[in-house]
Amino acid sequence: MQVSLREKSPVVHCITNQVVANFQANGLLAIGASPIMGDEEEEVSELVSISDVLSLNIGTLNNRTLESMLVAGKAANQKGIPVVLDPVGVGATRYRLDAIKKLLDVVKVDLIRCNTGELATLMQKDWHAKGVDAGEGEMDRKEVAMALAKQRKTLVVVTGEVDIVTDGNDLKTVTNGHISMTHVTGTGCLLSSVLGAHLTLLQKDQVRLLAEALSEYGSAGEEAAKVSESAGAFARAFLDQLSERRWQYDF
Amino acid sequence: MQVSLREKSPVVHCITNQVVANFQANGLLAIGASPIMGDEEEEVSELVSISDVLSLNIGTLNNRTLESMLVAGKAANQKGIPVVLDPVGVGATRYRLDAIKKLLDVVKVDLIRCNTGELATLMQKDWHAKGVDAGEGEMDRKEVAMALAKQRKTLVVVTGEVDIVTDGNDLKTVTNGHISMTHVTGTGCLLSSVLGAHLTLLQKDQVRLLAEALSEYGSAGEEAAKVSESAGAFARAFLDQLSERRWQYDF
Amino acid sequence: MQVSLREKSPVVHCITNQVVANFQANGLLAIGASPIMGDEEEEVSELVSISDVLSLNIGTLNNRTLESMLVAGKAANQKGIPVVLDPVGVGATRYRLDAIKKLLDVVKVDLIRCNTGELATLMQKDWHAKGVDAGEGEMDRKEVAMALAKQRKTLVVVTGEVDIVTDGNDLKTVTNGHISMTHVTGTGCLLSSVLGAHLTLLQKDQVRLLAEALSEYGSAGEEAAKVSESAGAFARAFLDQLSERRWQYDF
Repeated sequence: MQVSLREKSPVVHCITNQVVANFQANGLLAIGASPIMGDEEEEVSELVSISDVLSLNIGTLNNRTLESMLVAGKAANQKGIPVVLDPVGVGATRYRLDAIKKLLDVVKVDLIRCNTGELATLMQKDWHAKGVDAGEGEMDRKEVAMALAKQRKTLVVVTGEVDIVTDGNDLKTVTNGHISMTHVTGTGCLLSSVLGAHLTLLQKDQVRLLAEALSEYGSAGEEAAKVSESAGAFARAFLDQLSERRWQYDF
Repeated sequence: MQVSLREKSPVVHCITNQVVANFQANGLLAIGASPIMGDEEEEVSELVSISDVLSLNIGTLNNRTLESMLVAGKAANQKGIPVVLDPVGVGATRYRLDAIKKLLDVVKVDLIRCNTGELATLMQKDWHAKGVDAGEGEMDRKEVAMALAKQRKTLVVVTGEVDIVTDGNDLKTVTNGHISMTHVTGTGCLLSSVLGAHLTLLQKDQVRLLAEALSEYGSAGEEAAKVSESAGAFARAFLDQLSERRWQYDF
Repeated sequence: MQVSLREKSPVVHCITNQVVANFQANGLLAIGASPIMGDEEEEVSELVSISDVLSLNIGTLNNRTLESMLVAGKAANQKGIPVVLDPVGVGATRYRLDAIKKLLDVVKVDLIRCNTGELATLMQKDWHAKGVDAGEGEMDRKEVAMALAKQRKTLVVVTGEVDIVTDGNDLKTVTNGHISMTHVTGTGCLLSSVLGAHLTLLQKDQVRLLAEALSEYGSAGEEAAKVSESAGAFARAFLDQLSERRWQYDF
C-alpha cells in the first residue's frame, strides 16, 4: 500500500505560538497539507470538526489560549482525530509545566514531539536547558522516551542529533538533519505539525511512518544547508525542499 | 489623470490575523504603503484617525479583536475613509459567520474581498469549502458576487482562477495570477489590504481601478512563478515583484 | 579585552509585537543570541529569571501585554539585568504615550531605542510622524537625545540617516545603514533587541559598544542592499549578513 500526504491533503488545526505561526502555515502548505490556525475558544470545537488532526504548541501560551487548547483537545478526542502536543520550553517555567500536565490529564494525546531538555522536564530528570532551547545533560534518552510513551500511552518523538521515535515498545532512530535547522525559529514547531499530518495517513505502523517522515524532514534540512547555511537563505531553501518532496510512503 | 500608490503612500490600518501579519506588513511596504497593525480596542479609533484606509481580516479572530474591529470600523465610517473586509474562512464556523454578520450590520464596508467558498457562505449558496481554503462547487460566481454587492451596497472582489470585481452594476474579470499564490499563506489577506490601499486613490471608477490593481497583483504572481514555484523562493520573488512595480494608473 | 556575542550567547526575553515576532527571533538567532518570546503575565517573571536581558516593544500592545511588560520589567530590575524599551509609534495614540510613561515610571530602563519621531513625542517636540514611521520635522536630534538620556538616566539610541548613541554625557554617531532597511518591517524592532543583547557583554563603555554594534548592523544592511534592494531578496540577504558576522569587539 502506498500512502501520500499530498493526496490526502489533511486539514491541520494548529493552536500555536505567534512567533512561528506564519512559518508553520507555510511549511504545512509546502508539504501539501491545509492549515487552519484559529484559537478563539468559542470556535475551536467547530474548527476541529472540519479538521483531520489537531496540533497544540505552548510556545507563547497564555490563559486564553490554554482554555482554547483544552476545549479543542477534548473535541478532537471525541471526534477521534489525532492530537499532537509540542511542549515548547516546558522546563522554563512552572506555568508551562502546569499547563502541560493539565493538557495531558484532560486530553488524550497521540504524539508528544519534544527536544531532550523538554523530555527531561516531563520525566523529572536532571537537565540544563537553555531558555527554550534543548540544553545539555546526561541521561539515557531512549529509555526515558520509552518511559514517557508508556506512561502517557502515546507516541513520543525526541529530536536532537539523533532523533528517536517510540510508542513505548518499538523504537526507531533517525540521524538525518543539520545543525542549521536549529538556527531558524520554528523548525521544531513545524515538525510537530508535519508529523501530526502524517498520523492521518495510517492507523498502524505509525512508528515506522514517523521515522520515515523524520528522515525526509531531516534530509530537507541537509539539502537546504548545501544551498546555504546563512540564516535567510537556509530558511528559504528549507521551505523549497519541503515543497519539492513527495511525502509518499510504501507500507 | 495619473494616480500613483507610491506617491500617495496611504497609511493602511490593518486589524489582521497573527499568521499573516508580517507578510501583510511587508507586502504593503513593498507597494509603497505605510501599514499600522495595532488592535487594542482603546487605541484603534485614534489609529483610524491617522489612517487613510481600514483593513479588517478575521483569520484568527477572537472576542477581543472583534470588539476592536467594531470600534475601528465605526470610527472609519465617521471619518469617511474606506473599510475593507476579508471574511477569511467565514464558512468554517458559526462564530465567524456571526462575526461577519455583526461587522456588516454595524460597519459600512466599502469592499469585501473573498474567495468563492466565502462568497457562497455569505450568500447562503451550496458549496464545499475545505478548511479556510476556497473548496469547490457550482454556482454562477458573477451573479452571486453582483447580488452581494447590491445587497450590501459595497464593492466585491472574488478571487479564483478568474477574479471578479463588481459594484453590483458594473463587473470586470481578471485572469492574471498563478496557482503558486495559493501555496503561500497570506496572499489573499495581503491582496485585500493592497486593494484597500488603492481605494484611497480615486472616488470614482473604482471597479476599473481594482481590476487594474488585481491584474498587477496577479502578474506579480506570474512573474514570481517564473523565478521558482518552490514555496520559499516563490514567496521571496513575489515580494520582490511587488516592490519592483510602479502601482501607477491612468484615468 | 575581547567580547563576543556568539560566545556569550545571551538569552533575550522579548515581549514584542505580533508583526515582527518571527523576524526578531530569527534575527537574534542569526547573531548567536537565544530568544524567548513568552508574554503571559503569570510566567514572565520566571522567564526573566532565566534570561540575560529583557526587550520590550509596544508595536501591537494591548492591555494584557502591557501588564506583562510591567511585571517583567520589575522582575528584570530586581534581578539586575538590562531592560530595553522600543516605544514603537508612541506618537500615534494617547494609549501608547500613556503606556510608555507608565513603563518608564515603573521600570528602570537601560536603553531606549527609537526613531526621530518617537524621540520628539517622548520629549514633547514638534514633529510630523507618519503612522508608526519616523516622519519629518526640525529639531536638534543630538541635543534632544541627550536630554532624554539625562532625564531618564538611560542610554538612548535614535536611528535615522545618522544614528545617535548617548548616555546623556558621551555621544557617538554612526552613519552606516541603507534606506532598504526601512522597506522591511521589523528592522528597527530587531535592532532594539540586538542592542539589548550587546548590553550583556560589558558594564562600562556601553556607548562605544552600542555604536560599534550599530555600525555592524548598518553595514549588514549596506551589504544586503548590494545583493538586492527588492523587498524579499533584501530581507533574506539581511538575515544572511547577520548570521555571517562575528559580533565580536575589542575593549
